Amino acid sequence: MAKVQEIHHNGVNLSTQRTFGTKFTSGLKETFFPDDPFRQITEEEKSSRRCIKGVQYFVPIFEWLPNYTLRLFFSDLIAGLTIASLAIPQGISYAKLANLPPLVGLYSSFVPPLVYAVFGSSRHMAVGTIAAASLLIGNTISTVADHETEPALYLHLIFTTTFVTGVFQTCLGFFRLGILVDFFSHSTITGFMGGTAVILILQQLKGIFGMKHFATKTNLVAVIEGIFTNRQEIRWETAVLGIFFLIFLQFTRHLRVKKPKLFWVSAIAPMTTVVIGGIFTYLVKGQNHGIQIVGHLDKGLNPISIQYLTFDRRYLPAVMRAGLITGVLSLAEGIAIGRSFSVTDNTPHDGNKEMIAFGLMNLFGSFTSCYLTSGPFSKTAVNYNAGCKTAMANVVQAIIMALTLQFFAPLFSNTPLVALSAIIVSAMLGLINYTEVIYLFKVDKFDFVICMSAFLGVTFISMDMGLMISVGLGLLRGLLYTARPAACRLGKLPDSGLYRDVEQYSNASTVPGVLIILVGSPVYFSNSTYLKERILRYIQSEQSSSRNTVEYVILDLTGVTSIDTTAIEGLLETSKILERKGIKMSLVNPRLEVMEKLLASKFVEHIGKEAFYLNLDDAVIASQYSLRTSKTNNNDDTV
Amino acid sequence: MAKVQEIHHNGVNLSTQRTFGTKFTSGLKETFFPDDPFRQITEEEKSSRRCIKGVQYFVPIFEWLPNYTLRLFFSDLIAGLTIASLAIPQGISYAKLANLPPLVGLYSSFVPPLVYAVFGSSRHMAVGTIAAASLLIGNTISTVADHETEPALYLHLIFTTTFVTGVFQTCLGFFRLGILVDFFSHSTITGFMGGTAVILILQQLKGIFGMKHFATKTNLVAVIEGIFTNRQEIRWETAVLGIFFLIFLQFTRHLRVKKPKLFWVSAIAPMTTVVIGGIFTYLVKGQNHGIQIVGHLDKGLNPISIQYLTFDRRYLPAVMRAGLITGVLSLAEGIAIGRSFSVTDNTPHDGNKEMIAFGLMNLFGSFTSCYLTSGPFSKTAVNYNAGCKTAMANVVQAIIMALTLQFFAPLFSNTPLVALSAIIVSAMLGLINYTEVIYLFKVDKFDFVICMSAFLGVTFISMDMGLMISVGLGLLRGLLYTARPAACRLGKLPDSGLYRDVEQYSNASTVPGVLIILVGSPVYFSNSTYLKERILRYIQSEQSSSRNTVEYVILDLTGVTSIDTTAIEGLLETSKILERKGIKMSLVNPRLEVMEKLLASKFVEHIGKEAFYLNLDDAVIASQYSLRTSKTNNNDDTV
Repeated sequence: MAKVQEIHHNGVNLSTQRTFGTKFTSGLKETFFPDDPFRQITEEEKSSRRCIKGVQYFVPIFEWLPNYTLRLFFSDLIAGLTIASLAIPQGISYAKLANLPPLVGLYSSFVPPLVYAVFGSSRHMAVGTIAAASLLIGNTISTVADHETEPALYLHLIFTTTFVTGVFQTCLGFFRLGILVDFFSHSTITGFMGGTAVILILQQLKGIFGMKHFATKTNLVAVIEGIFTNRQEIRWETAVLGIFFLIFLQFTRHLRVKKPKLFWVSAIAPMTTVVIGGIFTYLVKGQNHGIQIVGHLDKGLNPISIQYLTFDRRYLPAVMRAGLITGVLSLAEGIAIGRSFSVTDNTPHDGNKEMIAFGLMNLFGSFTSCYLTSGPFSKTAVNYNAGCKTAMANVVQAIIMALTLQFFAPLFSNTPLVALSAIIVSAMLGLINYTEVIYLFKVDKFDFVICMSAFLGVTFISMDMGLMISVGLGLLRGLLYTARPAACRLGKLPDSGLYRDVEQYSNASTVPGVLIILVGSPVYFSNSTYLKERILRYIQSEQSSSRNTVEYVILDLTGVTSIDTTAIEGLLETSKILERKGIKMSLVNPRLEVMEKLLASKFVEHIGKEAFYLNLDDAVIASQYSLRTSKTNNNDDTV
Repeated sequence: MAKVQEIHHNGVNLSTQRTFGTKFTSGLKETFFPDDPFRQITEEEKSSRRCIKGVQYFVPIFEWLPNYTLRLFFSDLIAGLTIASLAIPQGISYAKLANLPPLVGLYSSFVPPLVYAVFGSSRHMAVGTIAAASLLIGNTISTVADHETEPALYLHLIFTTTFVTGVFQTCLGFFRLGILVDFFSHSTITGFMGGTAVILILQQLKGIFGMKHFATKTNLVAVIEGIFTNRQEIRWETAVLGIFFLIFLQFTRHLRVKKPKLFWVSAIAPMTTVVIGGIFTYLVKGQNHGIQIVGHLDKGLNPISIQYLTFDRRYLPAVMRAGLITGVLSLAEGIAIGRSFSVTDNTPHDGNKEMIAFGLMNLFGSFTSCYLTSGPFSKTAVNYNAGCKTAMANVVQAIIMALTLQFFAPLFSNTPLVALSAIIVSAMLGLINYTEVIYLFKVDKFDFVICMSAFLGVTFISMDMGLMISVGLGLLRGLLYTARPAACRLGKLPDSGLYRDVEQYSNASTVPGVLIILVGSPVYFSNSTYLKERILRYIQSEQSSSRNTVEYVILDLTGVTSIDTTAIEGLLETSKILERKGIKMSLVNPRLEVMEKLLASKFVEHIGKEAFYLNLDDAVIASQYSLRTSKTNNNDDTV
């Protein structure tokens, strides 16, 4: 037994006990500060430099502006002009989606881009309104205020919602709760975008068919019913014009895919549509043919709107709801797009800074007659393709918008609504990402279900329900994971002496009489019973298949990063049950946090220090040694 | 390079692809059938035997009754008599907690124990009503029907609630959803029981002080206010009697702890209290001194109540709420107690069978004027101590109850309410498990918070809110786990050549230029950004601390049991970022499910097969080999 004893104490650190403070701080830091905001600062030596670094960290414009060159500005100017040409039609169209006056959409492309240019960490982000959130915000606020009978109240509630979103996003960033955005998986976003695209396209049928009445709800069934009931309103003139615009827009989009250098054609196509549409309608006196237009637009920059924020109890629930949901949603979209370009181009991107930047731009936006803005997929992609280098592109965009508002706004009053509808439909067609859905189906069925639940939920129920169902399924997946983390049986590979999953490596051979289980992580209350049953089941199947009596169970804890008290009790219970069956249990390589809790709970005392091994091989050798001894003893008895 | 190539293909199984069917079935089976109900059946050969086994599996009475002996019966008789003597006072007291006529409490100890005897899998379970659920059910139904002004409606709603609980529990068992009960952690139950004990004790102050009016809410503040407002009602005669009974009961309980053989003294103490109290009140004409009594009790067995089940829309939400919450709660209590005795005594216990048994007993109970029953902690413990051998003890209990109902019920009409209050208080004092709370605080702070949230929630808000907050925190813990699974840096231990956590083993030395990370499980959407940041942070700290340039990152995936598509994309992103920094990434020992998804998503194609290693040592050797080569090349260049 001397040799076995020696192996037993082959190094498992049975004494590591960090203090509560250390554990708590490191746990908190890992959960909420995984990107460690001060890592680049603490290394510096001089305090003045450290201070500058700190300001640069929190206000990124100080980081890039000092090194800004004319050459960079030229690139940003081109990009800024391009996104501004997109911002005008999109601003007007998306404002219509939220049942807002078109001017509010234009205002929203003036102040927020300026704010973002100061605080934003991404270099490619183009700030603007987004279709999905516009529709969602409009739908939610419509439940408490009618935009036709009470337009002023409706508008003020939208500003208040934007204010709520701003405060919420700033807080998330300030308290570094980027973890919330982590729960929007790629699958959820894909499904949600697809579903939103479908209902937005359906919504635009109103504009394309030139109808005056339409479904008030956004789901598929309601919209189709709406079209049928009001089918006598359909105007062929509008429809022809709409289809023409749509073909034009889709053609330019197609061109971009074929010849990426001609991206600018598709970028200015919406503006072209608006201009051509406007001139055409003016020339043919479109109103006489049932072609609806945007209507009168005032000159002038954003009026102050801070005095309109209303926190009336009657409207607050709807305002909060709209503010929080669209707040998270627009963050998810904006952060995802920013991240993907920063990866492609190796430029900086910081989720928490982005949240603060988004929050501030919505906060200032709500004071200056803007509504919810974010970093839309399409506009940011155009900005990137147009060669933007810094956030200066947003400043250019803002200046163009200011000039437009001050001098040219009335020119857009003649824009036919059908042109705007065609622009939205064309943009939305690009968001239905069916290849991604096929990919999800092939790789991960659960992700496919999460994606489809968002898609179908949005299409058939409502946008927020679809989103919530999908996020809920994602959370459920996480919970099911912690309830049933996979364990597997290990066997020895012939040449290398490594222990690997017997199901994965069919040449792995099990050790007779010894059952080796690689335990999945975490070992928690939600799976402590399961783990016990799993071990007993392995023993049963081992005994019935190989007719070998299991005398040793070795649990490899290498992968277990976390354990709780219910599970510790479960392990103790398991060892008692095994003991009664005459089976010994040993534990291999418990990790730091697990070991700390096993020690604190006196589990180590109960089960004995000699049951712990640092290395699987040692545990197997020790068990074989003791198997042989017990067999010899049995033989002695029988002799 | 030849040698490196050889090592590269050292065995990672890059071809394993189970079919969707296999994966789906095994996933489903692991999630919902972890205890594999048919494992003992499939091994049998003859079909007749298999059929018998099947019946025995689903109706456990057929398993133990054929081998039942007179010797066993003698043990069960003693145990049955003991629990019956407990069932009478507890039945009456707990019925009062639920604002029910005392007879309903007695009825509930007749039919349900018989049903359990047939279907229950545990040998030690004693069936009866439970205090916490009685109070909860009473509180919830009181919100829609007043037990004083509409006693009939109130009673019928309680039967309906029991029916709902029965159906719900049977379904849970039938669909093998024991997983739901898994989410009640030990910490939640400890806190909930403690909190319930406190509010129940407070409730009993009404009885002990002989008051007629009392707080309608159960929380601490309301009860103390209630006592103050009605303090003129306090009767000293009752209080003296109550304190006397309480001292007697606590003394016998203390005796049991000191001398376990005298357990029967504490077991019959409640019955003694009732008898003495009844005789005393009768002799001194207690009513004249303000001592309230139970009042008239009819003779006769349970009347049929199936015709009273009401599914009126007005009451249904409350009924469903009460039924589902108490259903899960009573299952959690019953299954936990059954499991703990089955472990101590190595007797069978099957969570899913227990759920069906509990469900059926509540279903039949609701047809025969019973309300919610389960396996209460205290009664089951008494049953175990009294030496019960099989569920026959429940049959004995039922027969005694039947005799009592048929012949002796009126005798109990003289029982003073203060005696019942003393019985409840005494039972509840035993449920405040402060040593467990201290243990939780020492071992796991999060478990302590979960426990205290249940305790404080129940004490200060309400029972269901306390329970839900605590379960919610448990779920949050699971979600936070999947959002931030711990990764750690590995280093080589000096003698053994093993790679272990450098934080845990301070003698582990890192390999210069190579960063080895043991990745925590799962790798999911909720942590894909975190994981990327974690890796980059490790590189940064490695470079700033040791001034060594990291050229290789090795991710040990041994512990990763699950991955999803968002995370795969995150890994790909990470490898791109590393590539741009000139760092190579390799992956060690991906497990079966992970490998399948990496293959299906073409991740393996993107990153290259040569990046996969079966063994960490091989990966390190290969990286060192290539480090040396690249350094030699660099030297060549500079020369």
